[in-house]
Amino acid sequence: MTLGNDWFTEVDARSGSALSFRIRSQLHEEQTPYQRIEIFDTTDFGHLMVIDGCVMLTTRDNYLYHEVMAHCSLATHAQPSDVAIVGGGDCGTLREVLKHPVAAVTQIEIDERVTRLSERYFPELCDANDDPRATFIFDDAVAWMANAAENSLDVIIVDSTDPIGPGEGLFNVAFYKNCRRALRDNGVLIQQSESPLVHRTLHLDMRQAMGEAGFAERHPVLFPQPCYPSGWWSGTLAATGVDLQSFRALDVASLATRYYNEQTHRAALAIPQAWMDPEGNAS
Amino acid sequence: MTLGNDWFTEVDARSGSALSFRIRSQLHEEQTPYQRIEIFDTTDFGHLMVIDGCVMLTTRDNYLYHEVMAHCSLATHAQPSDVAIVGGGDCGTLREVLKHPVAAVTQIEIDERVTRLSERYFPELCDANDDPRATFIFDDAVAWMANAAENSLDVIIVDSTDPIGPGEGLFNVAFYKNCRRALRDNGVLIQQSESPLVHRTLHLDMRQAMGEAGFAERHPVLFPQPCYPSGWWSGTLAATGVDLQSFRALDVASLATRYYNEQTHRAALAIPQAWMDPEGNAS
Repeated sequence: MTLGNDWFTEVDARSGSALSFRIRSQLHEEQTPYQRIEIFDTTDFGHLMVIDGCVMLTTRDNYLYHEVMAHCSLATHAQPSDVAIVGGGDCGTLREVLKHPVAAVTQIEIDERVTRLSERYFPELCDANDDPRATFIFDDAVAWMANAAENSLDVIIVDSTDPIGPGEGLFNVAFYKNCRRALRDNGVLIQQSESPLVHRTLHLDMRQAMGEAGFAERHPVLFPQPCYPSGWWSGTLAATGVDLQSFRALDVASLATRYYNEQTHRAALAIPQAWMDPEGNAS
Repeated sequence: MTLGNDWFTEVDARSGSALSFRIRSQLHEEQTPYQRIEIFDTTDFGHLMVIDGCVMLTTRDNYLYHEVMAHCSLATHAQPSDVAIVGGGDCGTLREVLKHPVAAVTQIEIDERVTRLSERYFPELCDANDDPRATFIFDDAVAWMANAAENSLDVIIVDSTDPIGPGEGLFNVAFYKNCRRALRDNGVLIQQSESPLVHRTLHLDMRQAMGEAGFAERHPVLFPQPCYPSGWWSGTLAATGVDLQSFRALDVASLATRYYNEQTHRAALAIPQAWMDPEGNAS
């Protein structure tokens, strides 16, 4: 069957698949200096933000991604104090990070319009934006990270668009080297690393580049994310001298979440059998 | 954008979402006495079987569903000998079950054409069909279960279509009571129970009906399944006097699988925080 005009469709050409949401109306559309942003009102997923034709988030299911990316990385660090979020303009990750007793969170988003539209159409994700621990920088995160003070961060969360367009410079050895320089000893990086099923090559390339940048340990973090291609998504944790499979389970027990908890943290670390090398690690 | 004729689209009206696959051609189409079966050749997911407009399986990702449904249920039973598969006409679940040292597997599929077309278009799923432990019955599984000998089965796997059309009678208390009667002490039932995100009401109704039929323990099993609505799918384990969160981890270590292993079994049992009752069980 062919879908009518009351549907928004994202085609993932890389996987020959497409995902559609039934919409009531388009609430907003604009071309910023960086990208084209659209907001739709859907019949079943609440509001939907689309950037350059790709689904960024929906009201209904964004908690999965935001909770896993924020809590899996922070709970893996022994005592996170200074956190940077690269991208993350919708502020959903920031909100989750601020549930932890961190000292400071700096968010470097290239396009201020993403944040302004999120405040309007996803206000629930922005309800911690006035937290005094949060600093917003609307600038190029590649340059920001290159100039970041050495040993100044405990956790870096790269919550970016796909490696096409403005996000491209966030997926290479040079960027990861700058992250590594900015991280303190035992610092933890997490980056969204696309679908473990249909974007496996990209996932492996990122892992390889992180290794070349000096991150001795890398581990995948897998979780459901219905609004993204294949509905199965990943982050990659990277660090040096940190056991990425252990985390502060007791400290996360009191977090107010919908998906994340000790069980789902462990679930996110589980590796499909086909990915396991002879030592039982992710290959 | 609107997709052209080189796409197959399934609309999930219940969730206002749709999933599409780019196709090269339609390989087969027929109306059986029970349903309309179509087979497509896709550009990226191999062969695709569609029944009454709903995606049943693709070559590329069916291993997720089949491995989880078969191994999570069999590994939860202490020593499974006699197994029944209700539905399962594509034979992918059967193939996984036969990797275990069971004595006999009876598959009751209402529509023989599903199996014949699977032999032709998904031959890799049928490569165990001539195992002497397997018996194929092409008949109504509701009636078969009502007539099954008491205490004759160790594991029942309900691998059916959605609760619309031929599968409807497999989602109610009467059917579950017959399953319970056919199961021996410590027997284990598993049934596919739709999307944990977008079909949550159905998921809870099934759980409730299983309880009314006398299954004292029920536990969700969650896994990625990209070709189904939301890409996040579930089974529900049900039993009486069986700890559904423990399983024979040592015995599954030698299974030849792509997704399933001890880690992903535990991952499937993890419960989202919002589902947890004050005792830490799935509500």
